[in-house]
Amino acid sequence: MASSEGNKLWGGRFVGNADPILEKFNASISYDQRLWEVDIKGSKAYVKALQKAGLVTQNEMEQILTGLDKVFDEWSKGEFKIKPGDEDIHTANERRLKEFIGDPAGKLHTGRSRNDQVATDARLWLRDAITTLKELALQLISTMVERAAVEIEILCPGYTHMQRAQPIRWSHWILSHAAALSRDVERLEDIRKRVNVMPLGSGAIAGNPFNIDRELLRQELNFDRISINSMDATGQRDFVAEFLFWGSMCLTHLSKMAEDLILYSTKEFSFITLTDAYSTGSSLMPQKKNADSLELIRSKAGRVFGREDKEAMFDTYDTVHAVLQVATGVISTLKVNQPAMEGALSPDMLATDLAYYLVRKGMPFREAHSCAGKAVYIAESKNIHLSKLTVEDLQTVSPLFDKDVSSVWDYTKSVEQYSAPGGTARSSVTAQIEHFRTWLQAQKQ
Amino acid sequence: MASSEGNKLWGGRFVGNADPILEKFNASISYDQRLWEVDIKGSKAYVKALQKAGLVTQNEMEQILTGLDKVFDEWSKGEFKIKPGDEDIHTANERRLKEFIGDPAGKLHTGRSRNDQVATDARLWLRDAITTLKELALQLISTMVERAAVEIEILCPGYTHMQRAQPIRWSHWILSHAAALSRDVERLEDIRKRVNVMPLGSGAIAGNPFNIDRELLRQELNFDRISINSMDATGQRDFVAEFLFWGSMCLTHLSKMAEDLILYSTKEFSFITLTDAYSTGSSLMPQKKNADSLELIRSKAGRVFGREDKEAMFDTYDTVHAVLQVATGVISTLKVNQPAMEGALSPDMLATDLAYYLVRKGMPFREAHSCAGKAVYIAESKNIHLSKLTVEDLQTVSPLFDKDVSSVWDYTKSVEQYSAPGGTARSSVTAQIEHFRTWLQAQKQ
Amino acid sequence: MASSEGNKLWGGRFVGNADPILEKFNASISYDQRLWEVDIKGSKAYVKALQKAGLVTQNEMEQILTGLDKVFDEWSKGEFKIKPGDEDIHTANERRLKEFIGDPAGKLHTGRSRNDQVATDARLWLRDAITTLKELALQLISTMVERAAVEIEILCPGYTHMQRAQPIRWSHWILSHAAALSRDVERLEDIRKRVNVMPLGSGAIAGNPFNIDRELLRQELNFDRISINSMDATGQRDFVAEFLFWGSMCLTHLSKMAEDLILYSTKEFSFITLTDAYSTGSSLMPQKKNADSLELIRSKAGRVFGREDKEAMFDTYDTVHAVLQVATGVISTLKVNQPAMEGALSPDMLATDLAYYLVRKGMPFREAHSCAGKAVYIAESKNIHLSKLTVEDLQTVSPLFDKDVSSVWDYTKSVEQYSAPGGTARSSVTAQIEHFRTWLQAQKQ
Amino acid sequence: MASSEGNKLWGGRFVGNADPILEKFNASISYDQRLWEVDIKGSKAYVKALQKAGLVTQNEMEQILTGLDKVFDEWSKGEFKIKPGDEDIHTANERRLKEFIGDPAGKLHTGRSRNDQVATDARLWLRDAITTLKELALQLISTMVERAAVEIEILCPGYTHMQRAQPIRWSHWILSHAAALSRDVERLEDIRKRVNVMPLGSGAIAGNPFNIDRELLRQELNFDRISINSMDATGQRDFVAEFLFWGSMCLTHLSKMAEDLILYSTKEFSFITLTDAYSTGSSLMPQKKNADSLELIRSKAGRVFGREDKEAMFDTYDTVHAVLQVATGVISTLKVNQPAMEGALSPDMLATDLAYYLVRKGMPFREAHSCAGKAVYIAESKNIHLSKLTVEDLQTVSPLFDKDVSSVWDYTKSVEQYSAPGGTARSSVTAQIEHFRTWLQAQKQ
Repeated sequence: MASSEGNKLWGGRFVGNADPILEKFNASISYDQRLWEVDIKGSKAYVKALQKAGLVTQNEMEQILTGLDKVFDEWSKGEFKIKPGDEDIHTANERRLKEFIGDPAGKLHTGRSRNDQVATDARLWLRDAITTLKELALQLISTMVERAAVEIEILCPGYTHMQRAQPIRWSHWILSHAAALSRDVERLEDIRKRVNVMPLGSGAIAGNPFNIDRELLRQELNFDRISINSMDATGQRDFVAEFLFWGSMCLTHLSKMAEDLILYSTKEFSFITLTDAYSTGSSLMPQKKNADSLELIRSKAGRVFGREDKEAMFDTYDTVHAVLQVATGVISTLKVNQPAMEGALSPDMLATDLAYYLVRKGMPFREAHSCAGKAVYIAESKNIHLSKLTVEDLQTVSPLFDKDVSSVWDYTKSVEQYSAPGGTARSSVTAQIEHFRTWLQAQKQ
Repeated sequence: MASSEGNKLWGGRFVGNADPILEKFNASISYDQRLWEVDIKGSKAYVKALQKAGLVTQNEMEQILTGLDKVFDEWSKGEFKIKPGDEDIHTANERRLKEFIGDPAGKLHTGRSRNDQVATDARLWLRDAITTLKELALQLISTMVERAAVEIEILCPGYTHMQRAQPIRWSHWILSHAAALSRDVERLEDIRKRVNVMPLGSGAIAGNPFNIDRELLRQELNFDRISINSMDATGQRDFVAEFLFWGSMCLTHLSKMAEDLILYSTKEFSFITLTDAYSTGSSLMPQKKNADSLELIRSKAGRVFGREDKEAMFDTYDTVHAVLQVATGVISTLKVNQPAMEGALSPDMLATDLAYYLVRKGMPFREAHSCAGKAVYIAESKNIHLSKLTVEDLQTVSPLFDKDVSSVWDYTKSVEQYSAPGGTARSSVTAQIEHFRTWLQAQKQ
Repeated sequence: MASSEGNKLWGGRFVGNADPILEKFNASISYDQRLWEVDIKGSKAYVKALQKAGLVTQNEMEQILTGLDKVFDEWSKGEFKIKPGDEDIHTANERRLKEFIGDPAGKLHTGRSRNDQVATDARLWLRDAITTLKELALQLISTMVERAAVEIEILCPGYTHMQRAQPIRWSHWILSHAAALSRDVERLEDIRKRVNVMPLGSGAIAGNPFNIDRELLRQELNFDRISINSMDATGQRDFVAEFLFWGSMCLTHLSKMAEDLILYSTKEFSFITLTDAYSTGSSLMPQKKNADSLELIRSKAGRVFGREDKEAMFDTYDTVHAVLQVATGVISTLKVNQPAMEGALSPDMLATDLAYYLVRKGMPFREAHSCAGKAVYIAESKNIHLSKLTVEDLQTVSPLFDKDVSSVWDYTKSVEQYSAPGGTARSSVTAQIEHFRTWLQAQKQ
Repeated sequence: MASSEGNKLWGGRFVGNADPILEKFNASISYDQRLWEVDIKGSKAYVKALQKAGLVTQNEMEQILTGLDKVFDEWSKGEFKIKPGDEDIHTANERRLKEFIGDPAGKLHTGRSRNDQVATDARLWLRDAITTLKELALQLISTMVERAAVEIEILCPGYTHMQRAQPIRWSHWILSHAAALSRDVERLEDIRKRVNVMPLGSGAIAGNPFNIDRELLRQELNFDRISINSMDATGQRDFVAEFLFWGSMCLTHLSKMAEDLILYSTKEFSFITLTDAYSTGSSLMPQKKNADSLELIRSKAGRVFGREDKEAMFDTYDTVHAVLQVATGVISTLKVNQPAMEGALSPDMLATDLAYYLVRKGMPFREAHSCAGKAVYIAESKNIHLSKLTVEDLQTVSPLFDKDVSSVWDYTKSVEQYSAPGGTARSSVTAQIEHFRTWLQAQKQ
């Protein structure tokens, strides 16, 4: 342990040795090495500011820049070797830099604190992550919208509380999930505003004492703004918490969609079939074809990201990154069983239309709802479909019923009523598709 | 039970009686009556749209509007009586409307679903709640900024890991918390965008079948936009989840501030004293004066808002509403003990400055850090203050030390070094104060 | 406010007034009044110990006991009036006692702290709550076991991942949930051991200074043991945390059961029908009959009990108390649709048996699994049931197939294979029923 | 991918290829390889039961046992190579077994399902984990108890709400935390009862169809009991949830202890000093010596273990395993600063004793509390210590005060009053120490 002692950044002061369990417990290199690239980027900017402030010479700056490029090279070729003393990525990169260029490496940290560096790196990394996740989300939404456009003629039951409620278009169901995801994309942009603020130049707590040019740093690192208070800048991780919440909300949306699809893929519903690429089998039961991809998507909503902040940030990213792609795969390859969907439409799902029939003849809705309810009850008692009640049967409930009631029993006609914006009528669903196409165009710019 | 049966909205279909435990369990009137005002507002808008669509006559509309005004009156006078059958605020208001105007009341719900109504009411309520909380947050920030302006000359230790780190201005500490709260205000505006979208006109799931004019509804209710998909509009509660997260983040910020203040108010620190109005005593120990207000603020961060969505929304609002006001009271009345704060500054907190002294003489920072660490060790071994080391003592560590090292031991000079933006120098703190004053002005418009 | 000031327990020391928002925020009387009975019980025991220690006279003790009985009377008749200064149940009861008997009331708190009292009351209350919840859980389990006994002949699909897996007995499904609940009952007994420990006599923190006889207190209050350390006794709430966890685990079990039943009650499955007493309708759609009772049970697992400890304790109790009763009602009244259940059995669910057929002929299971998988694939390709494959078809997969393969296609025979303990064979399910009947007997003693 | 296809357990049925993202997402080998030893143990038992049931011959059994020993050997030597197709530890071990012994390996899984295997392995592993964690917890408690015995004479302030409350023995503080940990040990034993139940022989869902002897399996694997219902046995993970809750409760206890110690180690308190082995420095500030070990312990209470169940189980184990050892290290090496502790005792902490002085002269406690409160107020107004008030000063508050009041101002005497069981008097603390020594002896048997 003695030899690694010298590498530790607070080496001078200490005489005892650290408890090895504690050391291992403290080390973050196993996960924070993902920051290698942004850490080098941040250091390259910082040495330029040091040079401008007169704390390193032009020559020292060039040595450091060249050295950092070599470290970069090793990482990108997969040749960087982590050593026992490298407790985090920041220590590791600086240790390697020193091996390359010697003493000037020791000047790089002047006026900078570890917190400074960690906060800067995490923000740079997350800024890129947000860009990637946004692209993946847009791909998924685009897949959904185009599928909705193609399959607009397919009707299916709309469910509430898992019970058949009203006939809707299958595309209407797809777009309801696209709508939720489109808000997630918008939220991501709100987060980006608060991520893209530069903490560098905040020191440990009091600020930077060397007249470092923070505006230069901001430009080098392409941040939108500079943090306003050094204690806040190094001490807060709001932006990580916001991202974790974003992840859990996005996963909840995908989870709800998966939950519906799992149901639709049961033998009992048989509305959809997954391709083999998104199913798995059982080690015991040869016939099993589980909707494992959907179960995985569904399960991720329950995942709690409550670990150390950076670790949780990476974990959220990886999870959402995979789930968005699997969801895109599933949505683009699943087969729809139109006859099963339309076969599941049943006349009792038009009981609301039966009430509306009476409303159109002037009956107040609450009374019409009650009359339609009675008709349902009579049909159940007679063990026949609601549509098979005779006009006489219906007239026992209300004298307003007449022969023209037969026009109620048409699923397509029912669906076409819902033509107000946001409804399930063909025109309205088409308008939604157009809305999302336009929105997608705008997002991609 | 039989008599209340008739009032239930799905009365027609049912023949059995509901389990009373289930009924009680299901009822939300105990908390959702807070929506009474927005529920009436929403219904008044809706009846206008029904009239435009020809579903109620001009006369019926006027009856309904007048009746709703009477219901409003009863609520505002505290005279509305909840009856056993009133399972939620929507049922209660319509029940009362019917008692006032009879049959036309039954037309109000035409084409509207409960979900439609709940979603609309919740959004209208939350929109107002956001406005109120924003004002309270701005009052607190304003109190903090002005206190920071007045007490800018007071120095105190800045702590990391609860250990003395570097001297800072007391105002710098205050502003670090103001910075966090100012982001909360900005987040609230992001949420408002997604709250202020109108679901009304979405029906249960399929949309509205009566050509209701949703644009008219939007204008009447002052929403920014109309929801894009009816299933999404009635089924999602993202905006509530966002608000709950916002509440927990805001409470976390206030909690951290309270945590520091609790520490500063211990006998051992004695940096601040709370007024009696924000302290409580003990039923057993007569001398106790507990910082109960701070403990309360601190504890609320742990509060989890994981209940039924509306209940959690109200709970979050009430908690943040009270905490912001208590925090404003505490911050505006606490007394600062300047001698204790400045007495807690000790020469070892200038060890970083000792390192910087060497850096300014050309030594790389990593080496300077190590030398300063050794100086600390020597002082500890001799059991004297770091500032009491002689130049000879220091020269055993590095020959670069000279007589001018004595200039290091000046807390004000130390603080004044940190003049880069965001730092703790007088000029920099003043700039922060100006920034927040401008920001506050902008927010109030 | 001035007048209520005098009632506050720490009145003497304070000169300022408390912020009313803070006061309201701090008050717990709105929920802790549920402790009224145990609070009086605890005080009656404590005054006896004070008398034994010579701190109150025999006469004073009798006055206090009589006064407490009067307070008890008011509460039990619903006549106790909470006054503005009553911040919690302990203050309220002592205030009322003083109104009844005057000065001696002031002696009751000698050597006792509020924490002492709160901890004692909470434990006494929870001890009773555990007894009640255990009884309700046993009633539910008993209902399940007897239903399983009666319906042992009904077969149904067993599902994994919501896909049909293997035929099982319906009773086997019921008993799988009874097994989970029986562990909850056992856990409750583990918790009771740690709840039934007496903190009284711990003072604020240092203990009791008046030689109070804690063994006397223990006997009076029927605790099993006396707490070992006064700081731990007044400061810890482990027993509440354990109970909250217990509640969330029990609700999770009931939630899983409800989830299955919701699925079974869809039109698509049609395995069960709820009685009207456990269903609700829709305000818009007259035909809807939602499994609301099941949805409610299911949703409670998500409920997080993360509030102030006593409040969460009450909330957990109320929720579990209601859910257990609703679940008992549902389970005892639901109707089973045996033809639908058995109609859902399909030959592919016997693919495992097909593999076992080959195993019994000597083929290693992994190979047999693969062969049965191929048979499933051939049947799917031919669009026929697995049982309709000819021996010739099967022999293309393995020469071990012969005419006797026809014996595989019998669901009852399949089920009867699983006769190892815990399996779904008639004998094995009967053994489970007997096990639970014996266990229930033992629990009731 | 084609070549790995053959290794997948459900290989026969599938014709498409799996999405590689999904495959990677699904794989658990990266963490469940920790089950390697118990997985082999379970398989060895299972093959014996298969032989007894006539499903493998004596010879095949021996081949399998020998093969499994070879797999064991590779793992224990660190030579086992995970291959791309090894999605979990169960697949990996069986794949390797097949490479060693060929076809008979395919018989091992007869009648067993993956769920069966996973549940059995997890229980075997956790049983051992519980034993290890119990030992570590006992070591920590033992260290605490012996330290308490040695340092029984040291007095220090007892705090509530971080404000000085009453003088206590330092040992009393230590033992309050030992008490909490001792309950954790007892809870661990409660969990063990429910962990040590054997699921093996439950198949996928319906049970085991080959008359496997589950009693033989139980004896081989040293389980206490056999699971009662096969669906429950393979589907439930209660025992993992219980362990996760246990972990979070134990970490909360250690966190609270660490929180106090962090406070005591601040410069402002200076009650204790950590050895260098449990401290770390700062990369920027040379003088910093952070109580990092304590911060780490404190932070782990916030860690949420909400991931996939096995992963969370391992994570909880690792965290508690490390934290218990670090805590033992800290407690055994920290240095106590007795003068600082006793210097922090101040006369106002004896205000309760002042009230008790009056109580002993016959005044009701509530009145005495108020009088002592007034005395505190007078002393504060005069800016002198409470003990410096003259008898005349005190008599303005109550005529019962007399010269003998001077006897109140003795910290040791104050502490010695609390001699009721559980209190902080020497005799009472000694009794606690004896209690824990006896308890520790009993636990170790």
